[in-house]
Amino acid sequence: MSVGTIFGVGLGPGAQDLMSVRADRLVRGACHVAYFRKAGRKGQARAIVEGMLSPEAVEFAMEYPVTTEIPFADPRYNEILVRFYAECCAHLERLAKTGADVVVLCEGDPFFYGSFMHVYTRLKDVVPLEVVPAITGMSGAWTATGHPITWGDDVLTVLMATLSEDVLAARIAATDALVVMKIGRNLPKLKRALHAAGRLDDAWLVEYAQMPRQRVQHLSAADEVTPYFSIVLIHGQGRRP
Amino acid sequence: MSVGTIFGVGLGPGAQDLMSVRADRLVRGACHVAYFRKAGRKGQARAIVEGMLSPEAVEFAMEYPVTTEIPFADPRYNEILVRFYAECCAHLERLAKTGADVVVLCEGDPFFYGSFMHVYTRLKDVVPLEVVPAITGMSGAWTATGHPITWGDDVLTVLMATLSEDVLAARIAATDALVVMKIGRNLPKLKRALHAAGRLDDAWLVEYAQMPRQRVQHLSAADEVTPYFSIVLIHGQGRRP
Repeated sequence: MSVGTIFGVGLGPGAQDLMSVRADRLVRGACHVAYFRKAGRKGQARAIVEGMLSPEAVEFAMEYPVTTEIPFADPRYNEILVRFYAECCAHLERLAKTGADVVVLCEGDPFFYGSFMHVYTRLKDVVPLEVVPAITGMSGAWTATGHPITWGDDVLTVLMATLSEDVLAARIAATDALVVMKIGRNLPKLKRALHAAGRLDDAWLVEYAQMPRQRVQHLSAADEVTPYFSIVLIHGQGRRP
Repeated sequence: MSVGTIFGVGLGPGAQDLMSVRADRLVRGACHVAYFRKAGRKGQARAIVEGMLSPEAVEFAMEYPVTTEIPFADPRYNEILVRFYAECCAHLERLAKTGADVVVLCEGDPFFYGSFMHVYTRLKDVVPLEVVPAITGMSGAWTATGHPITWGDDVLTVLMATLSEDVLAARIAATDALVVMKIGRNLPKLKRALHAAGRLDDAWLVEYAQMPRQRVQHLSAADEVTPYFSIVLIHGQGRRP
């Protein structure tokens, strides 16, 4: 029997019509779909494709056993996630070995800070795998601001707000254009780092980019609470005729 | 009479089915399409949509009066481009004011180091404008390598190879993951900067990402000649369970 392919399909920032034509075709035609989500939630990736799946599609929700309850540095965090990814991969591998293709739904672009990478690296020498790139959340966010992110020779730095305040401040001071992701409860720390770098007034906060609840505002005017998937941006001011 | 909308439509890295569903619909339905190109060439953006345009579509090729013949720093470069963008915008504005929508074809993502930004900033308070984000060329490139670009807290730096060798070397030494664009004749300088930063052996060269001529190789093994739209990458090695 032939072995199916596992497709890591990037869904883009959230709007269904910002999915690629290839992703749209794979999602609508899928017999098996899998996706990561926080336990007890519907899941952002699954929510994006609402109404697109075949009524016969078999769904496999991969629920993170832990998200922010245990710090990354705790060895238990790593152990729990290693076991979790092993179980997910074993199930996906079994599905593929029945001959079925499996579509794994991925928010944003699968190879850019995504969870699918943990499946990909474990299964790439075991079953056929294909990755469909997508519009990143950050592209969705800078488009939402109505201002280009980079011009001419601008340097763009992408940072995770999970970094330390000192590292954030130094990196922010040294770049032209900035994208910060994984914000959520790190927002107060990020604001302090932006202030220390002298750039708080240049920063924008984009929540739910390209989704119905999209909100774009100057960060200095924003609340202290924002979702994990919010994005903070500073636009480059490089060379332009 | 109502005024038409000018759509800056990102086409993504090159494959037609990596265009968004929204871009696909706009391109196929367009009565007026415009695109930038080097004089005497077909143009990369126009090439991507080959076979998709309506037979009735009216095309407007905006031919750069200069690309690399005059250095950026020469005041004539700026003067020539200012006049060029003014002429392009005047024509696009006239089309929109006939009531027609106009689709401007943009390689990659329009707000990420693109030419459409020069139209956008000049016309955004004059006629209705909409920007359709897209898969960036860099997403196309890192997907082509078969390795994720960023993990965990990796810092990603995006650089233009037009920067000086010293600046490139310092930035490359200070980042986890790297993307370098606008390469072409800057390749020897970029290789020297990567070597100085101790990272030449980690670098990949991706030519024609997601296009039929796609070529992915270790940069240290590559020729000294590569197209302007090639992308050099170093993958992050960040935290992973």
